[in-house]
Amino acid sequence: MTLNIIGLYSGSYFLTNSCGYPYSRPEFLGLSPDEVECSADHVARPIVILKETRRLPWSAGYAEVINAGKSMLNEDQACCEVLVVKRRPAGSSTPNHPLTTRRRSSLPNGEGLVLRECLDSAEDLTFNYWALFDGHAGSGAAVVASRLLHHHIALHLQEVMEIVCTPNLQPPTCLGEELLNHHLTPTSQRALTRAASLRGAAGAPGSPGTPTTRFCTEKKISHESLVIGAIENAFKDMDIQIEREKAVYNISGGCTALVVVYLLGKLYVGNAGDSRAIILRAGEVIPMSTEFTPESERQRLQFLAYMQPHLLGNEFTHLEFPRRVQKKEVGKRMLYRDFTMAGWAYKTIEDDDLKFPLIYGEGKKARVLATIGVTRGLGDHSLKVHDSNIYIKPFLSCCPEVRVYPLAQSEHGADDVLVLGTDGLWDVLSNQEVAEAVTCFLANCDPDDQHRYTMAAQDLVMRARGVLKDRGWRISNDRLGSGDDISVYIIPLMYGNKQN
Amino acid sequence: MTLNIIGLYSGSYFLTNSCGYPYSRPEFLGLSPDEVECSADHVARPIVILKETRRLPWSAGYAEVINAGKSMLNEDQACCEVLVVKRRPAGSSTPNHPLTTRRRSSLPNGEGLVLRECLDSAEDLTFNYWALFDGHAGSGAAVVASRLLHHHIALHLQEVMEIVCTPNLQPPTCLGEELLNHHLTPTSQRALTRAASLRGAAGAPGSPGTPTTRFCTEKKISHESLVIGAIENAFKDMDIQIEREKAVYNISGGCTALVVVYLLGKLYVGNAGDSRAIILRAGEVIPMSTEFTPESERQRLQFLAYMQPHLLGNEFTHLEFPRRVQKKEVGKRMLYRDFTMAGWAYKTIEDDDLKFPLIYGEGKKARVLATIGVTRGLGDHSLKVHDSNIYIKPFLSCCPEVRVYPLAQSEHGADDVLVLGTDGLWDVLSNQEVAEAVTCFLANCDPDDQHRYTMAAQDLVMRARGVLKDRGWRISNDRLGSGDDISVYIIPLMYGNKQN
Repeated sequence: MTLNIIGLYSGSYFLTNSCGYPYSRPEFLGLSPDEVECSADHVARPIVILKETRRLPWSAGYAEVINAGKSMLNEDQACCEVLVVKRRPAGSSTPNHPLTTRRRSSLPNGEGLVLRECLDSAEDLTFNYWALFDGHAGSGAAVVASRLLHHHIALHLQEVMEIVCTPNLQPPTCLGEELLNHHLTPTSQRALTRAASLRGAAGAPGSPGTPTTRFCTEKKISHESLVIGAIENAFKDMDIQIEREKAVYNISGGCTALVVVYLLGKLYVGNAGDSRAIILRAGEVIPMSTEFTPESERQRLQFLAYMQPHLLGNEFTHLEFPRRVQKKEVGKRMLYRDFTMAGWAYKTIEDDDLKFPLIYGEGKKARVLATIGVTRGLGDHSLKVHDSNIYIKPFLSCCPEVRVYPLAQSEHGADDVLVLGTDGLWDVLSNQEVAEAVTCFLANCDPDDQHRYTMAAQDLVMRARGVLKDRGWRISNDRLGSGDDISVYIIPLMYGNKQN
Repeated sequence: MTLNIIGLYSGSYFLTNSCGYPYSRPEFLGLSPDEVECSADHVARPIVILKETRRLPWSAGYAEVINAGKSMLNEDQACCEVLVVKRRPAGSSTPNHPLTTRRRSSLPNGEGLVLRECLDSAEDLTFNYWALFDGHAGSGAAVVASRLLHHHIALHLQEVMEIVCTPNLQPPTCLGEELLNHHLTPTSQRALTRAASLRGAAGAPGSPGTPTTRFCTEKKISHESLVIGAIENAFKDMDIQIEREKAVYNISGGCTALVVVYLLGKLYVGNAGDSRAIILRAGEVIPMSTEFTPESERQRLQFLAYMQPHLLGNEFTHLEFPRRVQKKEVGKRMLYRDFTMAGWAYKTIEDDDLKFPLIYGEGKKARVLATIGVTRGLGDHSLKVHDSNIYIKPFLSCCPEVRVYPLAQSEHGADDVLVLGTDGLWDVLSNQEVAEAVTCFLANCDPDDQHRYTMAAQDLVMRARGVLKDRGWRISNDRLGSGDDISVYIIPLMYGNKQN
């Protein structure tokens, strides 16, 4: 299947071409409408896995289950693709030039991908992509992001592919310049006269930089940084596109996004939200993401609110208190913390402190503006505090944190895997529990079984969902199972070595 | 020596009482005016250590050396104190109540401190304090902070000492209330009607919080958090005091601050600047601080500039480029990154990008607003970009990062130490080099030698300064030695165990 992408920046190709994206389950599952309906049974909660006739690249495993009734639809989404980015025509250096990427599709009809293939031709760059999206307040954003985010990534990679595909090529600071010639502009000449720098240079080895050396200094940027930048800006473009087209295509809600890009020997894990990726390697757990929540991003959010208090609409305070302040407590001393503090101290309560706190609640119940429990993701442009005109979006970031794992640098065994899961998994199972379950499961599989990673993913979802007992879903040690949507990838790492 | 502190908040006691703080070397060195003058020899650069008749608490070692000519005076300062905080009169809960702390001085006349002493009486709380300050653009802020910051810490600890001294006492959210009675105010009733929370609660174990449980939720704050908050707010108060009194007392410049507080079995290391603390324990290096520089704080600074562009005075851009942009490059594609990005990407250069970048330069040469190479500290309220009206201070933070080491939880040998150093040390020696030097030095000392830690500190300063050769100061492998002021503490950890 070939898809031509033309002029993303000059219009709204993605959505107009497809007449919007109706709700469904991930394309690679190949579910019939009947099967989609069955998968949405909130009572039985069937665990959906890849059919035996279907395989994902690298034999990656996938399993999912719907929530226990929290929303009509399963608001998680997933995507898995192998994408081919074509090199720009020689001499082209304009960013908005029409370009073509071909998508090696998610294996319709059970056809497996040929492994060991990276560059389709000398002109193309192939990358692998796996992603999880966890929607809220509607399924629209997650559906759209699962269909389009990888194209945005492909477009941004296309811009730098000639550089990243050329080993030992230092990325040029400015495109279309071979040698840098630093004529001083009037502005920089003026800057030269600025104060002798106050700290650092004189104390460092060597003498303080002279103006001449100072303006010749040029940061060396790595290939890896360009890929990270491409993923970061792809998230931004995806978010902008959702905002631009949400009215036309009725894109509801927002979603988290956790993506994995395998390119030229390295795994790039980009995360915006509260999903999680961990690598299990020879029994060791390597965290590949952090969660972005009201608690983990408290200081960023408080800092923003402190600087732009109008965003709080005179109803919220940027200060945090251990609980709501009561009117009778005005004048008393209460514990608080502001954006500068990790610790707590006492302050005298004023009338302003009676406002609702910007960050309120603990753990999974923590909320921004009493509304949302996750602080990064895509969409949510229309989301407001209930019964108010206060928008949530300014406090949310669509920017992922990207971590890199140099996969091709070392050998990996058949049981070394990357586990991706939405928060439904991690709410009830710790990294260690997941590591033990997966390691134990894989050790008991036939190493030649192509479905071992899918079976392991199914096992994980089962452990997180639990079984239905008298008083609800229960997992080991009679703990409560997750009532949330749960989606899990288990991606073996040995194929990365084989491929390059 | 006893010092009574009365009414810090109600006036400017500290400075008025002393008629300002003239420049000198750290009080605990006990240098005569002649000795101070000798220590300022920029050519010989004598290493100054504690006299044999003097001892610091815990037999801590200290050594310092002046810069190679970068500034007339040694702009580093140090302080070491044992402070006794007196409990407030019973029933007092007002914050501005006059109070008394007694300072166990830095051992004049060679008198050693009695170890194993923590509480002077049932009413008092004793804590140890070591600090390093690294001044710039004048010595005033460093001198004042070295004389006063510990009193601010004592005042803030005094506010919470009854709580932190009572094991198993949960810090009360609101002072003067025994039991919390959550009557809903009209405001909170309104909040109850707010939107069902969008994420997290429903997916978590258990059912979503009902309004009743939600408003009873109260964060549990630890004793440790109160000490951290006390140190954080003490830094803020110190900075406010410098701002308030800089005109009257001609307090020049700014300074970094690295402080260690030992209280009730725990070491608290607070850092605002580019000094560094590491613990060496059984051959292992445990970092106890991070440096705050234009590079490490780039995203915070760019975020601030993005939100408050007037702070850039129309002369700077918040974007970062690998080098200055030239006028002829407008319209071309150049590498950049903004506050959301860790990676790099290309953008089309516009006229606005010709402005000087907010963050410019690399490593020790990186600067904020072409002016300063450190982004946290005290003072600098008058500092402006040369030949402009652009203030630097809004970009600087006086807030420390505080890390905690549970010293009393484990045994420590005589060679387990906390090393504090200003950037003059760390610019030329890595953590590993410092660890090897100290470990090797202490292993060759007589374990009963009271001066072994001072000798080890002297050895470290010597290794960082080097020896004067034809072409300047040289250290091992013919590398350049540090031309900066260098100050080092080596604090043995075994005394913490003995004390409690």
